[in-house]
Amino acid sequence: MTHTTPPPTPDAKTYAMPTMEWRPEDNIPECVKSQLSNMGHSLLPHPLPFFHIIQELKIKKRTGWLDFQIWPCESIADHMYRMGVMTMLIRDPNVNKDKCTRIALVHDIAEALVGDITPCDPFVNKEEKHRRELATVEYLCEKFIKPYNEIAAEQLLNDWWDYEECRSMEARYVKDIDKYEVLLQCFEYERLYKGEKNLQEFFTAVELIKTDEVKSWINEVVCQRDHFFENVNQICI
Amino acid sequence: MTHTTPPPTPDAKTYAMPTMEWRPEDNIPECVKSQLSNMGHSLLPHPLPFFHIIQELKIKKRTGWLDFQIWPCESIADHMYRMGVMTMLIRDPNVNKDKCTRIALVHDIAEALVGDITPCDPFVNKEEKHRRELATVEYLCEKFIKPYNEIAAEQLLNDWWDYEECRSMEARYVKDIDKYEVLLQCFEYERLYKGEKNLQEFFTAVELIKTDEVKSWINEVVCQRDHFFENVNQICI
Repeated sequence: MTHTTPPPTPDAKTYAMPTMEWRPEDNIPECVKSQLSNMGHSLLPHPLPFFHIIQELKIKKRTGWLDFQIWPCESIADHMYRMGVMTMLIRDPNVNKDKCTRIALVHDIAEALVGDITPCDPFVNKEEKHRRELATVEYLCEKFIKPYNEIAAEQLLNDWWDYEECRSMEARYVKDIDKYEVLLQCFEYERLYKGEKNLQEFFTAVELIKTDEVKSWINEVVCQRDHFFENVNQICI
Repeated sequence: MTHTTPPPTPDAKTYAMPTMEWRPEDNIPECVKSQLSNMGHSLLPHPLPFFHIIQELKIKKRTGWLDFQIWPCESIADHMYRMGVMTMLIRDPNVNKDKCTRIALVHDIAEALVGDITPCDPFVNKEEKHRRELATVEYLCEKFIKPYNEIAAEQLLNDWWDYEECRSMEARYVKDIDKYEVLLQCFEYERLYKGEKNLQEFFTAVELIKTDEVKSWINEVVCQRDHFFENVNQICI
C-alpha cells in the first residue's frame, strides 16, 4: 500500500474529498504563488498579488464566444469595462450610478480564478459555480485586500453580494446591463462575421431584462439587428 | 481643370485645410455611420451609437506593446479596467474613490476614435494629440451622450478635464495609477517572455509617480522585477 493510493474505505473517501474540491488557493497564477514567498521580507501587506490576479481578467477570454469559434474575442475585463461605462449613462435619478459602476467592475471578479463558466458547462452546475465564485471572492478579500485595506475589502464583498442576490436597485440595473452588454456584443460579432454566425440563442435573455430603461436600450439593438439580418439575407438571395 | 483639382491659390488652400485636419466625426466606425442614418425613424435619442464607439476600446490594442511585437496584448479597455479596480484599493481617506474609478474609466475614452498615440509617434505631437482627444471627448459628449443624458455628458467631460489638467487629488491618484498599471503590465510581459523582452525604457516613469501610496506600490514592483531579472540572468549564465 502506498500513500498515493489510499484504501477504498468510507474513511479514506472522507479524507480524500477535500483535495478534490475546487479551491481558489489552488488556482492562483504560478507567478503569484512564487511572489508570495518572495514577499516574505516585506513587513507591510501589499496589493501587488491581488493586482496580478486581476490581470487574469485581461487575459481570459469570454467562453461564450470561444464556444462559437469567435477569435479574437473580448476578454472578461473588456466586458466589465464597457458595462462600467454603460452604467454612467443611466438616466433614472433614483439610482446611485457610482455604485452601479463599482458593481459592474466587480460582479465577475471571481472569474479571475474560476474562469468564465457558462450555463451549458457539462462539468460545473449552477450551484457549484456559485460555490466557487463565492469562495474566490471571500478568499481574495480576506487574503489579499483586507490586510492592505479593510474598508475596500468590505465594500468589494458587499458590492459582489449585492449583485449576486440582486438586493438593490443598483444591482438590478447592473444585472440588466450585464445582459445588454452581452447581447450588444453578440450583434457586433454577427455583423463582424457578416451574418455567418447567428447567435440567436443568446437573445432569449432579452425577456429577462427588467428595468424600463435597459429595455428601451435592448429594443433598439433588436431593431438594428433585424434590419441587419434582413439586408444580409437579401444579399444572400 | 476639374473639381477634384482646385487651383493652387491661397483661397483654395484655405478651403482645403479643414478637410485635412483630423476630425472625430470622420473617424467613427462605419457601422455607427450607417446606424445613425437607420435611426432616423427613432423619435428618442439613444445611447446605442455611443456604446458601439466604446466597443472600439475593447478592440484596439495598446500601441506600446505592439511596438515591441508583444502579441496577443491587452486592449485599451483592459488597461482602464484594471485601473478602475486599482482605484478601489486606495487607502488615503481624503480621496473620493468613486470619482477615481470614474476618471480611470474615462481618461482614455477618446482613444476609441483617436487611437492610442504614444509619445514617440512620428506623425502626431503632444499638442495635436491633445487637440484630437479634446475634440473627440467634446464630440462624444455633445453628439451622443448629451441628447440622451445631459447630466452624464457633463460629468464625463468634467471627469476627463479633471484628469487632463490634474485639477483634483483624485486625478492625481489616477495619473499615478495610470503609470503604475503600465509598469506592472510591463513586468508581467517581461516575465511572460521569460526576460527576452526588456522594457526598461518604460521604467523612467517610476520617477513621475507623485503620491506616497502609489510610490509604495511601484517600489514593490521594481523590487520583484529586480529579483526576476537576477534569476533570469543566472539561468542564462
